Amino acid sequence: MPELRKDPVTGRWVIISTDRQKRPNDFRLERSSTIGRQHCPFCPGHEAMTPPELLSYRQNGGGRNAPGWDVRVVPNKFPSLQVEGTIDREGEGMFDRMNGIGANEVIIETPHHDRSLALMSEPEIERVLWACRERMLDLKQDFRLRYILLFKNHGAVAGATLEHPHSQLIALPIVPDFVREEIEGARRHFDVKERCVFCDIVHQELHDGRRVIQENADVVALAPYAPRFAFETWLLPKRHGARFEEAPRHEYESLARVLKSVLQRLDRALEMPPFNLIVHTSPFSVDVADAYHWHVEIMPKLTRVAGFEWGTGFYINPTSPEEAAKVLRAVRL
Amino acid sequence: MPELRKDPVTGRWVIISTDRQKRPNDFRLERSSTIGRQHCPFCPGHEAMTPPELLSYRQNGGGRNAPGWDVRVVPNKFPSLQVEGTIDREGEGMFDRMNGIGANEVIIETPHHDRSLALMSEPEIERVLWACRERMLDLKQDFRLRYILLFKNHGAVAGATLEHPHSQLIALPIVPDFVREEIEGARRHFDVKERCVFCDIVHQELHDGRRVIQENADVVALAPYAPRFAFETWLLPKRHGARFEEAPRHEYESLARVLKSVLQRLDRALEMPPFNLIVHTSPFSVDVADAYHWHVEIMPKLTRVAGFEWGTGFYINPTSPEEAAKVLRAVRL
Repeated sequence: MPELRKDPVTGRWVIISTDRQKRPNDFRLERSSTIGRQHCPFCPGHEAMTPPELLSYRQNGGGRNAPGWDVRVVPNKFPSLQVEGTIDREGEGMFDRMNGIGANEVIIETPHHDRSLALMSEPEIERVLWACRERMLDLKQDFRLRYILLFKNHGAVAGATLEHPHSQLIALPIVPDFVREEIEGARRHFDVKERCVFCDIVHQELHDGRRVIQENADVVALAPYAPRFAFETWLLPKRHGARFEEAPRHEYESLARVLKSVLQRLDRALEMPPFNLIVHTSPFSVDVADAYHWHVEIMPKLTRVAGFEWGTGFYINPTSPEEAAKVLRAVRL
Repeated sequence: MPELRKDPVTGRWVIISTDRQKRPNDFRLERSSTIGRQHCPFCPGHEAMTPPELLSYRQNGGGRNAPGWDVRVVPNKFPSLQVEGTIDREGEGMFDRMNGIGANEVIIETPHHDRSLALMSEPEIERVLWACRERMLDLKQDFRLRYILLFKNHGAVAGATLEHPHSQLIALPIVPDFVREEIEGARRHFDVKERCVFCDIVHQELHDGRRVIQENADVVALAPYAPRFAFETWLLPKRHGARFEEAPRHEYESLARVLKSVLQRLDRALEMPPFNLIVHTSPFSVDVADAYHWHVEIMPKLTRVAGFEWGTGFYINPTSPEEAAKVLRAVRL
């Protein structure tokens, strides 16, 4: 059973895999490359290589766990958390732990091994967003869970072990540190101003314009004022809303359009960079409907020699967001 | 002039290099390897390749900026912050910024290109610690500065661009996020218990024993209860003290002994892993003498496919600290 443990100083929760523990030799053997087409468990016809599917969209029919799907969601074969069991919160002296209860699912975004999000059509991207929504609404019914972390690692440097386009979700019985901090910050702002801090950001950035990359009726893509990473890009809905999974249909449609375009811009300006994409959304258990605002953060991994930032949360960014936005705006699509 | 910018939601400060900005091409050209012996600016005889020295220890004489030194401290040739100027805190609408005033220095730990800390003698390591202390005491007199971040990137994967053993310090007009969080956590603990949380950790861990790697009269090395990284190791002084630069001589001596031994253990168990080493110490401007406890954190960079953690602060660790401590204790020195 994996374990969740809390750092007694900072309150940060970490997942410790206590089952299939990595010993020193395992790190030496770890591949730094990704698994290609030949042995790809996510390609059509290889459905038996994954655990049985939780959800699939099949415009052209096809039976469960058989080819014919457009989007397919399966449990992670090597999950960080375990669905079955009880949480069993307990103390060990001054330390706090609980069982690693939760879910870890993979959203296989397309049957095409080489069709990254940037290359998919807008309706195809929208379909991926709907599959994520559907899984989140289902998992929300599990009273043990407090947060769903929806993310995408693209490229080996960004942590992807499989090439085939996919996202992941990790459903957790705790709220991760970085979400907690954002919520506390958003609450502080709301307490003082009676306004959502993200709404204020959208308003100021659209007025200023220097950091705006692109916008449509519902969504704006911008380089944030204090980015941790070069070419970091945020996608924010213009309308206030705390929960990704409760967004109206037209926002998914608009998000799909902006997302495709932003990923194309990054691909062209930076030659297909590895990146992490993270959906920031409200925890289930917390009422921050007025203060919090769901959004998407994309962090390209460009500085190959970085390493210090990882583990300190202290960032030195070699590219200003004004410059990054200018470069990305100038890309011809 | 580099800039410090504050994220309006989380309050996190980042350094933005606005002078020598990186454009897309610069990332493509960036080397992923380190600079070797031939062009090493830190080797004796190459003193002219660095800015003039701020400090050197020379048991065998030799003039300033000439060979003969044992430890040498120079300004970083490509600094993240600038020493000259005024801070000029200002708002840009809802955003906050200030000039990137500060210092960025390099501690060249030895004249020997290949002698890593693990291979140095204990008195040699102690000398490095004293050089760091001396620079910190000097920089503390600058009223503009609030924190000194003392760290070491070892190996290309951990962010080192030069092979030659060296540490760095970055003196900042702000307190970095990860230090602020630690201090807030330590204060919360002190408010409730009237005890230092790190003293409590040392006490409980020495009593328990499962996560202790090594100890001597003054210092204990342990695998923390909730580590972010496999084989993460903390070195804590047993005696309470908030500031690294005010530690008594015998603690440096003891720290040098444990540090050498722990780095040897990591080198043997994990085949010379890349790592980041960070000294956590109290900010100048904050009085947390009772609640905070300086210490050293070592984070090996073993999981080559990581990337997601970087930027979220959400960690999945494949090796339990009990297992890591057991492996490191068992290494024969």
